[in-house]
Amino acid sequence: MMQFFKYPDRNLWPELLQRPVMDSSKIEEEVEIILLDIKKDGDAALSRHARRLGEEIHGNFLVSGSELKAASKLLDEPLKNSIQHAIRNIKRFHKLQMKAESPVEIETGVTCWRKSVPIECVGLYIPGGTAPLFSTVLMLGIPALLAGCREIILCSPPSKNGTIHPAILYAAQKVGIKKVFKVGGPMAIAAMAFGTESIPKTLKIFGPGNQYVTTAKQLVQRAGVAIDMPAGPSELLVWADESSVSAYVAADLLSQAEHGPDSQVILVTTHSATIENVFLELENQIKKLPRKDIAWKALKNSKAFLVRKPEDAIDLINSYAPEHLILSCLNYESVANKIVNAGSVFLGNYTPESAGDYASGTNHTLPTHGYAKTLSGISCESFVKKITFQHISKEGIASLGNTIEIMAEAEGLTGHKNAVTIRRINHAEKI
Amino acid sequence: MMQFFKYPDRNLWPELLQRPVMDSSKIEEEVEIILLDIKKDGDAALSRHARRLGEEIHGNFLVSGSELKAASKLLDEPLKNSIQHAIRNIKRFHKLQMKAESPVEIETGVTCWRKSVPIECVGLYIPGGTAPLFSTVLMLGIPALLAGCREIILCSPPSKNGTIHPAILYAAQKVGIKKVFKVGGPMAIAAMAFGTESIPKTLKIFGPGNQYVTTAKQLVQRAGVAIDMPAGPSELLVWADESSVSAYVAADLLSQAEHGPDSQVILVTTHSATIENVFLELENQIKKLPRKDIAWKALKNSKAFLVRKPEDAIDLINSYAPEHLILSCLNYESVANKIVNAGSVFLGNYTPESAGDYASGTNHTLPTHGYAKTLSGISCESFVKKITFQHISKEGIASLGNTIEIMAEAEGLTGHKNAVTIRRINHAEKI
Repeated sequence: MMQFFKYPDRNLWPELLQRPVMDSSKIEEEVEIILLDIKKDGDAALSRHARRLGEEIHGNFLVSGSELKAASKLLDEPLKNSIQHAIRNIKRFHKLQMKAESPVEIETGVTCWRKSVPIECVGLYIPGGTAPLFSTVLMLGIPALLAGCREIILCSPPSKNGTIHPAILYAAQKVGIKKVFKVGGPMAIAAMAFGTESIPKTLKIFGPGNQYVTTAKQLVQRAGVAIDMPAGPSELLVWADESSVSAYVAADLLSQAEHGPDSQVILVTTHSATIENVFLELENQIKKLPRKDIAWKALKNSKAFLVRKPEDAIDLINSYAPEHLILSCLNYESVANKIVNAGSVFLGNYTPESAGDYASGTNHTLPTHGYAKTLSGISCESFVKKITFQHISKEGIASLGNTIEIMAEAEGLTGHKNAVTIRRINHAEKI
Repeated sequence: MMQFFKYPDRNLWPELLQRPVMDSSKIEEEVEIILLDIKKDGDAALSRHARRLGEEIHGNFLVSGSELKAASKLLDEPLKNSIQHAIRNIKRFHKLQMKAESPVEIETGVTCWRKSVPIECVGLYIPGGTAPLFSTVLMLGIPALLAGCREIILCSPPSKNGTIHPAILYAAQKVGIKKVFKVGGPMAIAAMAFGTESIPKTLKIFGPGNQYVTTAKQLVQRAGVAIDMPAGPSELLVWADESSVSAYVAADLLSQAEHGPDSQVILVTTHSATIENVFLELENQIKKLPRKDIAWKALKNSKAFLVRKPEDAIDLINSYAPEHLILSCLNYESVANKIVNAGSVFLGNYTPESAGDYASGTNHTLPTHGYAKTLSGISCESFVKKITFQHISKEGIASLGNTIEIMAEAEGLTGHKNAVTIRRINHAEKI
């Protein structure tokens, strides 16, 4: 069961809230060899490493048109309808993020504006393994498409029989991704970072993965390729009190715990009976979970905190900066206004984290490991950069020019000053 | 003079547009020792390293109230007025970036929204050296203040007599920065990353610097501290043609060349006479520059391209992704719409880069080294993270629930499904 801490001293918080250290140094060398190899030898190296790791290579890496078409037939209607429902909601929420900004006349003749311009080519990585993470295809593909990226490619490792799960292929098609490649692990990251004969080089790489994938992303980032964000085990903090339903709280904690043995699950409350009730519910519910062994391991490393007052809970949350935060407490709206560090916040008794994981519309790719203190989750903005533009007229440089000249001179940059002066004293006839 | 390339083959562009490789591996060890030392010993290590590098340490590092007050008296009125003029414009432009987003009902009972929340503590670094870069104080301080960061600190190395240039102190006060510390180099980065007895730990570090500062920023980033962006030598690309004024173009190129011998200066044109005319003007104007030796070195490494048609110029620009781009060409407005990779774009004959460097309102901290393909310049958004929120009602989970259940089950995550099911079948009385 979870570890329980009653009124822990604030000095102890940092230690109690510490995350496991992610040490990739041991595998860095191994991953680096793969990256350099693929950078040098392209597809040939890709095949070599994939075979070495037991992946089947059938022909080239691109998923064929007929494979894509077949995917739809392999899924049942309720799942296809659900994916389409989720796509509608995710599109609706993410569309709001694409607002054009108007030019503004800052002063007479000086007009400035900002424009969101899509990153030209982006690469999405979807892990293989036991569960087909087709929801992540939606969470990365939809904002990429809405942002307007010219080329969006997706890499995912094939299973033993050389196929990618039909739900991943179906989701990719439904959001509009044209090119899916059967390649996984650090090989996929290398291919998207450097390009090979069959896989295009991309400018920014998105998506979750195991330690090898994460290390590969870190290494290509040092080589100048952008990545979405640093990855770590998933996290959920639930604030519950006398207004919450213990059965719901326990279900939420277990939904996080089933992710993996390293999942971070935290319960905070001001109400001691909540701890007992939630623990009872956890014991009850966990038995029925197919992934109960994983969930047990995660729970054993998890912590429940009883704190004296709501202000303590708020401070504890902000100092931990959870990826996911459920506020199943009294006055959750005013509490929400005091949350300054979190990835995504779920309010009230009927808002499970799984809603945001799949279908409410928000993005599920969120900052873990305390990065919520400085980073946002994925949005359309992750797929664009904002370019500033300005136009100054003859009148504009006349009114602004002297300010620039004085400042440039004070910084000792006479050339900067001259670029203004020459336009002020020597108005050419042209334009 | 600049190197001239007439109708170079597209295959040669990548080589011709290559930037100098930034190799920090040699100094990494040296910088790492400083970082670890300050992380361990705080202020004591800070003083030790500052003394070793010849910096004077007078008492503690904080600039006193009387020093701040005195700064205003040491500057002349025209400079103070110019700084205030620039502040007005920069505020006006950056304010537009702080727009609140409204909650949206995605479907019945499912409401989602995003909120910009300031990063709590940020650190700004302003280099010392020959020129006091007080303009950078404005470019970092104003968006930090507008974003609402609770704590904003500034570090800058003191001169031999233990003072910081009054223009830097004046600018800091005028934008509302309360704490300025006299410490420079990698020591300042370490202090802001880890905190010392006198300097608060910050969550994100901004600002330019030499190779040691840049390396220190890279290293603390690997340790989990956020930084603004990777730094490289400043860049300007000018597209000129028969509509441009060669004297202005030359002045712009020189304003970039005077930054440093490694400045990247590029001229692109479809009009061969422009090359000759600009070269003549360069020779003419460079003689009068106090920093002519630096500018000459930069020009020798710089390149002028004659291309056949405007489409070639556009492709060349987008493949280089310049930090600064001046479009001093015909139809600059329609050309601007085709620019997809650049940091900041200046349109027409009367818009020198120096306007954006100082006072037009846009930010001058911009992505160099090709990072404009994926990164934006500094804005208020650099000082916030966006948190998503959602509230689902009993009716909302009734309508959305089955979609979540089906998707979670298909991903093999029964716990995720249960968190919904338990709320659908077991509506508690509470709330």
